[in-house]
Amino acid sequence: MEIERQAPKADEVHIDILYCGVCHSDLHQVKNDWHNTIYPCVPGHEIIGRVVEAGSSVTKFRVGDLVGVGCMIDSCGVCPSCQEKEENYCEGPVSWTATYNGYMKPQNKDFNTFGGYSTNITVKESFVLSIPSALDISAAAPILCAGVTTYAPMKHWKVGPGQSVAVVGIGGLGHMAVQLARALGATVTAVTRDKEKQAAAEQLGAHEVLISSDAAAMKAHELKFDFILITIPDAFDVNDYVTLAKRDGVITTVGLLGPYKASLNNMEVAMHRRSVAGSIIGSIAETQEVLDFCAEHHIAPQVEVIPMQDINNAFDRMMDEEVRFRYVIDMASLKEEA
Amino acid sequence: MEIERQAPKADEVHIDILYCGVCHSDLHQVKNDWHNTIYPCVPGHEIIGRVVEAGSSVTKFRVGDLVGVGCMIDSCGVCPSCQEKEENYCEGPVSWTATYNGYMKPQNKDFNTFGGYSTNITVKESFVLSIPSALDISAAAPILCAGVTTYAPMKHWKVGPGQSVAVVGIGGLGHMAVQLARALGATVTAVTRDKEKQAAAEQLGAHEVLISSDAAAMKAHELKFDFILITIPDAFDVNDYVTLAKRDGVITTVGLLGPYKASLNNMEVAMHRRSVAGSIIGSIAETQEVLDFCAEHHIAPQVEVIPMQDINNAFDRMMDEEVRFRYVIDMASLKEEA
Repeated sequence: MEIERQAPKADEVHIDILYCGVCHSDLHQVKNDWHNTIYPCVPGHEIIGRVVEAGSSVTKFRVGDLVGVGCMIDSCGVCPSCQEKEENYCEGPVSWTATYNGYMKPQNKDFNTFGGYSTNITVKESFVLSIPSALDISAAAPILCAGVTTYAPMKHWKVGPGQSVAVVGIGGLGHMAVQLARALGATVTAVTRDKEKQAAAEQLGAHEVLISSDAAAMKAHELKFDFILITIPDAFDVNDYVTLAKRDGVITTVGLLGPYKASLNNMEVAMHRRSVAGSIIGSIAETQEVLDFCAEHHIAPQVEVIPMQDINNAFDRMMDEEVRFRYVIDMASLKEEA
Repeated sequence: MEIERQAPKADEVHIDILYCGVCHSDLHQVKNDWHNTIYPCVPGHEIIGRVVEAGSSVTKFRVGDLVGVGCMIDSCGVCPSCQEKEENYCEGPVSWTATYNGYMKPQNKDFNTFGGYSTNITVKESFVLSIPSALDISAAAPILCAGVTTYAPMKHWKVGPGQSVAVVGIGGLGHMAVQLARALGATVTAVTRDKEKQAAAEQLGAHEVLISSDAAAMKAHELKFDFILITIPDAFDVNDYVTLAKRDGVITTVGLLGPYKASLNNMEVAMHRRSVAGSIIGSIAETQEVLDFCAEHHIAPQVEVIPMQDINNAFDRMMDEEVRFRYVIDMASLKEEA
């Protein structure tokens, strides 16, 4: 379908989209799993492109710059979180503006944003990222969501040397988390129910792989981790992982945006003063930081580049958990079609 | 019934019990709510008494000293938590030894401990507290459980001046938490479903009272609190309180030792990077600290002193939530009977 992008306002840039990652959220949104999809829906919030036009007051970017756009394209700017540059926790009336399926600011409540499964996009410069030249642009797109979503909580909860970290779910988010945790200096255990992912997880940098369906192995890992990052995208029983945390350990869920499958048992939480937390994407500053961190530490998403025409097949394979680990759409394929 | 206390070993003191608080846990245990009660069961873990005999190596206490015993009488001593003086998070094979209904160390797994609803008790000196002379001993007993259970998490999560704290449930634990949070310098909101407790909560030091059944008032308090301490003793829906926490706010449940009534919704947790935590009693050092803190800040549990013979009536009134706020048994009544 054809959509029209507005010409850039003074503080906006117009971006020619080169690549767009395929996030599990895209699939949730397309399937209306969150009961809030506005159709027609144009997904895509892992966007890599090139600036083709810059508004008159833009200072951060020039025409020709390689740039990225992640999950947010705006926020209220005035709430405590925005003032403290934590735009991803915007407390404005409609929170931050999502790159797709998002309402614009309250005065434009009927406006549905369209994301990166498209040839071009117009975004406020303060929500646009610089892509370090050391990154492979055909692979970098997932850093903008999968990367920052796992990096931000690890930085917030101070993951680093001497710490024992478990990453639960080795998919799009998890495969980034393993690499990032390792580069942050932690001892990393990949937790997956899929024994076939063992070798891949080790290749990504996991010191150890724990198979979650192995009850004896799970039992042997009780009280072992300072920080547990859970990336499972669908409802699951969080109690299975709570027991793995040390005293004062933190269990943070980033994939699931809804209720857990079973009721949290406060006995296990309280007995070791554990915390069950959650985190959502990351701030613009953290997104730039993770891009730079990946460039510095030679971390790249493992991607399979597909043409736009293969997206439905890609969604099917994601549902069957056959993707390792992220699809990226080469947007030239869409331009050819148009 | 008659039980026999052992004569104090070298590192133990024998205590003549003067007062014993009646905790909601006593009721849970007597009713076998946790499915682990060993009958016969002698409850009581808020014990105030006087040392009548001291073992040969005891240095902390002398005969005649006023002392207290709380929820623990021993722990493994070798796990990381015990080594770090956080005995209440003992990771030994049977955790810490509870003052009643507790197994002794692994080698004595068949030994059931008997608590403070009795005339005397023998306890290791390292698990015995000093009672500051400024405290009224007929009222102080609940500090040993209700006091430290609410004080320890507030200290751990750094409640202090400039912070906004909600205390949910204004009963035995909650009425201590309100006083302690106020003395720690926080702005305190008491949250109760019981409108009749409003005046009492204000008298305890609450700056504000929020009635949890008032949906509009609850809505108006969303994103308001840095720290929320929940003292409700039975299963409840934690989601009702999660939304009250600010970004990075912590919700800590201390009363409930079991699953929540409804499944935790990670959407609300993640959207503002909140944490749902739990905490159990406090260390021996924290117990001494809260006793001294109460003495210094003139904080006292509000108690109704009863004779032992009234215990069943007291339990009934606790179930009907008619007690304000704690019963304390005057143990002279039991001695007279014997």
